[in-house]
Amino acid sequence: MRYSPLLTDLYELTMLAGYLEEGMDGKRAVFDLYFRTNPFEGGYAVFAGLEPALDFLEGLRFSDDELVYLAGLGLFKPRFIDYLRGFSFHGKVTAPPEGTLVFAGEPLLTVEATLAEAQFVETALLNIINFQTLAATKAARICHAANGAQVVEFGLRRAQGPDGGLTASRAACVGGCEGTSNVLAGKQFGLPVRGTQAHSWIQAFPDELAAFRAYAEVFPESTILLVDTYDTLRSGIPHAITVARELRVRGHELRGIRIDSGDLAYLSREARRMLDEAGFEGVKIVVSNEMNEFVIESVRGEGGRVDIYGVGTSLATCAGAGGGALGGIYKLVEIEGKPKLKITGDIAKSTLPGKKQVLRFVGPSGAFIQDVVCLQDELIKGGDTVYDPANPLRHTTIPLDARMTELRAVVMADGRRTAPRESLDSMTARCKGEISRLPSGCLRLINPHRYKVSISDRLKCLRGTLIEELEKRIMEHEK
Amino acid sequence: MRYSPLLTDLYELTMLAGYLEEGMDGKRAVFDLYFRTNPFEGGYAVFAGLEPALDFLEGLRFSDDELVYLAGLGLFKPRFIDYLRGFSFHGKVTAPPEGTLVFAGEPLLTVEATLAEAQFVETALLNIINFQTLAATKAARICHAANGAQVVEFGLRRAQGPDGGLTASRAACVGGCEGTSNVLAGKQFGLPVRGTQAHSWIQAFPDELAAFRAYAEVFPESTILLVDTYDTLRSGIPHAITVARELRVRGHELRGIRIDSGDLAYLSREARRMLDEAGFEGVKIVVSNEMNEFVIESVRGEGGRVDIYGVGTSLATCAGAGGGALGGIYKLVEIEGKPKLKITGDIAKSTLPGKKQVLRFVGPSGAFIQDVVCLQDELIKGGDTVYDPANPLRHTTIPLDARMTELRAVVMADGRRTAPRESLDSMTARCKGEISRLPSGCLRLINPHRYKVSISDRLKCLRGTLIEELEKRIMEHEK
Repeated sequence: MRYSPLLTDLYELTMLAGYLEEGMDGKRAVFDLYFRTNPFEGGYAVFAGLEPALDFLEGLRFSDDELVYLAGLGLFKPRFIDYLRGFSFHGKVTAPPEGTLVFAGEPLLTVEATLAEAQFVETALLNIINFQTLAATKAARICHAANGAQVVEFGLRRAQGPDGGLTASRAACVGGCEGTSNVLAGKQFGLPVRGTQAHSWIQAFPDELAAFRAYAEVFPESTILLVDTYDTLRSGIPHAITVARELRVRGHELRGIRIDSGDLAYLSREARRMLDEAGFEGVKIVVSNEMNEFVIESVRGEGGRVDIYGVGTSLATCAGAGGGALGGIYKLVEIEGKPKLKITGDIAKSTLPGKKQVLRFVGPSGAFIQDVVCLQDELIKGGDTVYDPANPLRHTTIPLDARMTELRAVVMADGRRTAPRESLDSMTARCKGEISRLPSGCLRLINPHRYKVSISDRLKCLRGTLIEELEKRIMEHEK
Repeated sequence: MRYSPLLTDLYELTMLAGYLEEGMDGKRAVFDLYFRTNPFEGGYAVFAGLEPALDFLEGLRFSDDELVYLAGLGLFKPRFIDYLRGFSFHGKVTAPPEGTLVFAGEPLLTVEATLAEAQFVETALLNIINFQTLAATKAARICHAANGAQVVEFGLRRAQGPDGGLTASRAACVGGCEGTSNVLAGKQFGLPVRGTQAHSWIQAFPDELAAFRAYAEVFPESTILLVDTYDTLRSGIPHAITVARELRVRGHELRGIRIDSGDLAYLSREARRMLDEAGFEGVKIVVSNEMNEFVIESVRGEGGRVDIYGVGTSLATCAGAGGGALGGIYKLVEIEGKPKLKITGDIAKSTLPGKKQVLRFVGPSGAFIQDVVCLQDELIKGGDTVYDPANPLRHTTIPLDARMTELRAVVMADGRRTAPRESLDSMTARCKGEISRLPSGCLRLINPHRYKVSISDRLKCLRGTLIEELEKRIMEHEK
């Protein structure tokens, strides 16, 4: 898929024109992409969207048609339009692989390029990474709540536009979903596709039993019957059992039933009992209807007997605390080798200046202990003291037996990928593996334990020095 | 833009295969698309997405590549794949024009076609209409809160995927936004594009004044300066005033300043005072940073002096009550001329059976009085009694002096548009006009007055009869 370079905020272009005019476009700049709070008031995020982001960067070119449009805006000089004709991305990108657990305050992507190139790609990178990371995180939360039951993503009809649905399907699989109803996502990303019939199928026949029989006739190997059109316990499940018997006579087994309304904990228990009593222990129970991680947790808590959860709206639109958006930002941290800082009233919202690395310290059992953000050339090891970035009075010491891994690697150099594309399966496996190594309190849906992300002493001092310099300059202005 | 026919839930395809196998694909069916509750717990919705929906229907064809993928799933017989090769949409569509105010329980789109065609288009129609209607509604709420100040949509970076952003930009303009930062949306939909510079521009220069001067040098006619990078009142605004003076000497006027953090009511008042005292009454004040309808209302309430609101995340992702999704549904209401019904435990959630029209009754002043859903061939007039669909004991009488208009018209026949494409400007004007005619209590952001949508006596009786029939059939099954 081609991403249009016009998929950007206008100010990226006005700034680009400005940098060119000022002769600053070729300065070397470093930007960090990160978020300030974990999504959904949760304890972690699942990084996703890297491969599409790299696709965007590799393919970045303006078409003639796009240049004609820009020239017609009446904003830009012909020289700038000519400049865009030859514009592409030649920078370096450092990032974790998709499926990695990441936390608020850690640089995710770091882009090193000319000021022009690094600035221009801001909006598209944020658009791609923000939503995919959000959706992968939502999926991981839902799958964690499902506790081993399968989760299938059904959200296309309520997704935010066609691509909202496609993107959500991809990211949901990174976060642990087993498949999607979205056929185009299945084709584009090689995901398993799932689905059987709607209420309208049942209604299109003279009665429910006829509708069930017809479906089982056409798809004897993969029939899941929707049992709640008229009355789940009095009509749907008895009819499903009738059809299951008829299928068995013909050498097939009914795959499952789906309940899409009512008290899903109660109905799934009753359905299990009725199916088991009739000798259909193998028939799976699928539930759907406004599912999210909290509903799933409570259905489980009430003894629901669910094999597969179909999750639509809340997953596709990432509903929940945070309002369907990851607040990812993209900030200048260095220019021409000089670290840069943006301050705000709140020290926790100041950027972390300079080129940095993100280190993860892991205990002897493989469990994650904490992450540390430090400067690029720093060496941090067991015994070192590291600091809470929001409150530098709080500090901890890295345990002596901790192993250190670097969370990120160079994934693009001179505008080209440095490694082949990774498969979605491998991202999904990474995500599952990392979740099993995170302290379990951090996985809690409500009020989770905060996983520690510290900063090194040198980074803390650099930030302090830059804040002082800025304060001094503002005070001078007032005189 | 081509919509792939694979942009669908798998079950649309399995049902299609089933109908073909059962010889039912050619039956005549009628489906209604509607929603059950107004979005954002508000008093209305702004219908949007019709033109893209018609594009989808007109262009519906399977490519060879798509057929190869479907054949490879191992689910479908070769006969079905052949059938899809010739598949397209030949149905009739009835709908209101975009920008029309619509309400819970009213059929929006009605699709009449073969069962195969009408069923297959469900997912894509819902995807397109749900999100565009939601985003147009959100924009209308935000513009209403802004009370005449301009609203510009800035949400691309936090939107749900590239198309989430594009779609939101288009729908936001239907709902009343004046422009967008999204350049691709500008190109595709002819929208005004807006934007100047980011904090990184300011940081890329040795100091703020140099950054302001450089921008004003390049864009003397359209400079809006971002004044909060270091300190809004002590540094940003004084520097902006310096540059405004320099521009004036050269024969230009500073266009505006933008404040992106802090107490926006207070800062905008102070900014206005400082600018006015310096003789720059014409410089516009733009504010941004996590704006939504409620924040805008409170900034206004606190005497904020804002000319333009830049609204990003909350608009692009439609954050708020409802979790970023409109719960639009698509239900079978008639097959082979026979009205159909889906019941649930709650009478208010039962479908309204049969082919219907939506009438709007308007008072002598032009103010909307109420809407009535009735059967296709019914005549409703002043003096008639109509019923609350959720509680048929409640009824009202249509005033004798009310004028009646039909909300919807046939917009597609035999799979082709019946009228030329409408311009976005015309939709925006319609939306503004209708909002001015809605009782003002219905516009309230919190706990709005409920606009009445009634059903006719004949429709109420038809629904009652069908519910009784279904109940009888379920009871017979139990014997």
